[in-house]
Amino acid sequence: MTTTHHFPNDKKHFTWAKDPQPIITIKSGDTVIFDTEDVTDGQFSIDSKTEDIGSLDWERVYPLAGPVAIEGAELGDTLEVEIVDLKPGSWGWTAILPGLGLLAEEFPDAYLRTFDLTDSKYIHFSENIKVPIEPFLGTMGVSPADADGQAIMPPGKFGGNLDTRQLTIGTKLYLPVQVKGALFSCGDGHAAQGDGEVCVSALECPMESTLTFRLIKNKSIPSPQFQTAGPLTPLVADKGFYGTTGIGPDLYKASQEAITSMVSHLSTEYDLDSKDAYLLCSHCVDLKISEIVDAGQYVVSATFPLSVVEE
Amino acid sequence: MTTTHHFPNDKKHFTWAKDPQPIITIKSGDTVIFDTEDVTDGQFSIDSKTEDIGSLDWERVYPLAGPVAIEGAELGDTLEVEIVDLKPGSWGWTAILPGLGLLAEEFPDAYLRTFDLTDSKYIHFSENIKVPIEPFLGTMGVSPADADGQAIMPPGKFGGNLDTRQLTIGTKLYLPVQVKGALFSCGDGHAAQGDGEVCVSALECPMESTLTFRLIKNKSIPSPQFQTAGPLTPLVADKGFYGTTGIGPDLYKASQEAITSMVSHLSTEYDLDSKDAYLLCSHCVDLKISEIVDAGQYVVSATFPLSVVEE
Repeated sequence: MTTTHHFPNDKKHFTWAKDPQPIITIKSGDTVIFDTEDVTDGQFSIDSKTEDIGSLDWERVYPLAGPVAIEGAELGDTLEVEIVDLKPGSWGWTAILPGLGLLAEEFPDAYLRTFDLTDSKYIHFSENIKVPIEPFLGTMGVSPADADGQAIMPPGKFGGNLDTRQLTIGTKLYLPVQVKGALFSCGDGHAAQGDGEVCVSALECPMESTLTFRLIKNKSIPSPQFQTAGPLTPLVADKGFYGTTGIGPDLYKASQEAITSMVSHLSTEYDLDSKDAYLLCSHCVDLKISEIVDAGQYVVSATFPLSVVEE
Repeated sequence: MTTTHHFPNDKKHFTWAKDPQPIITIKSGDTVIFDTEDVTDGQFSIDSKTEDIGSLDWERVYPLAGPVAIEGAELGDTLEVEIVDLKPGSWGWTAILPGLGLLAEEFPDAYLRTFDLTDSKYIHFSENIKVPIEPFLGTMGVSPADADGQAIMPPGKFGGNLDTRQLTIGTKLYLPVQVKGALFSCGDGHAAQGDGEVCVSALECPMESTLTFRLIKNKSIPSPQFQTAGPLTPLVADKGFYGTTGIGPDLYKASQEAITSMVSHLSTEYDLDSKDAYLLCSHCVDLKISEIVDAGQYVVSATFPLSVVEE
């Protein structure tokens, strides 16, 4: 018999703590419903403005619900996390945060936009651009073996802030257990994001998440793996894609070039301010490594789904 | 009025030559049909074996059909290449070439397989794995401004060996014109390839290609761009994907980790020799940059389409 637990809303942590103590303990097969704030822990709201970025309390960024202990989990096991359901809250935000993001030098100034998510299918990005809502949790992880109070932001082999858009409803995420009980935590809801999350924020939002946990004994994986239940981008597949490229020996710089070209293309083609074009890339443009084998000159492509544009 | 040209089969070049002379000159709007050998220039056949890799004449690798001059094209223009039709030949090959490929250290030994393409929809990779044929030309480019006889293999802002799987039938490729007449060349047919082309070869094949050229005056792009006509992976979208990850500060190493994990997963799950699993990655596994903004720790995902496995 399996049980559904409601994780207590008021229990959150803001770092990967040394010797974390579980808030709840569950059995393999159990389901937990988490209700998490956005990544600012509710410091932003739909009425927030760019100037509110300056007064953010960064100690409260990345509130995670957890840890949840799974009975019997040990180092060397794998934890399966089935993403049964995800319900974004009623609003979201996306921002350029100075010094962060793939194009930090080109976009030195803070910029914040908020979006109404009450139409559960799309956000209205501009007059003729609607981005479909494809929610996932930016952060799901087990407690890292070397946890010592480090920041949540960098992900690792334990998972954590994976920011991987394929982890949406129906996907099963596999995490390598690092410590006794696994000690799973999650948060950082995203209502939409392209592969890359290039401007440093996705469409950030509160999220109600229903996750089912299964312990796989004696199966060890080197880093997170996942299995999706269907197509990768079903909501934007149909109308074709516009692609830009970056080419060179450094995949990071090639990614910067591909996104710089895409920002320029979107600005020109759809009459967007370049900051908005950059945000739109973070919402729905996917970075692909087209080839990584040609005499030290690699191709990164950025693809924009034309279906987000209304005709 | 536009014209359809048949490019002469016997005209090929094996480097980006200094001061290349056009073989044919066409007008904007014209179509050219190219009939190209595989990237070994026909040195391999369906009967080739691993030991034939050792006797390859590398001077004959990368035969390109071209150059084709487009009347009126000048530095600063953009050349649109519409991929109207692609017909792979009757056979193809994929190989591990010592010293090349993303996992060159793990796979030091040569290995060659050939495949029958006469069933035009799939190749039979193993007893229960069929990879759909989604053809494209690995190499399409204008003559580089700094052409001095350099090798074809590394791509550049002029295009060339882009190895980008989205350049399939219906896609329009945009190339930045570097020299008077643009001087377009192509070759290196691929019957299938995942984003990354990780083992260094795709499903390499002869190809008959029908391309329509249009000159866009006074529009300059920094590197190749493209627009697809529809979904990116329509033939493998439906049954979900298995994903592996690599996480760290170096996108190249993270890509190696993701593919190493995928080779291990495919070997175990589908009872494949690891060399075959590596080839299968090159045929149909896509490398994505999931996030490139999280405190210097980036996530690369490799996704395998479950629809290639028969139930």
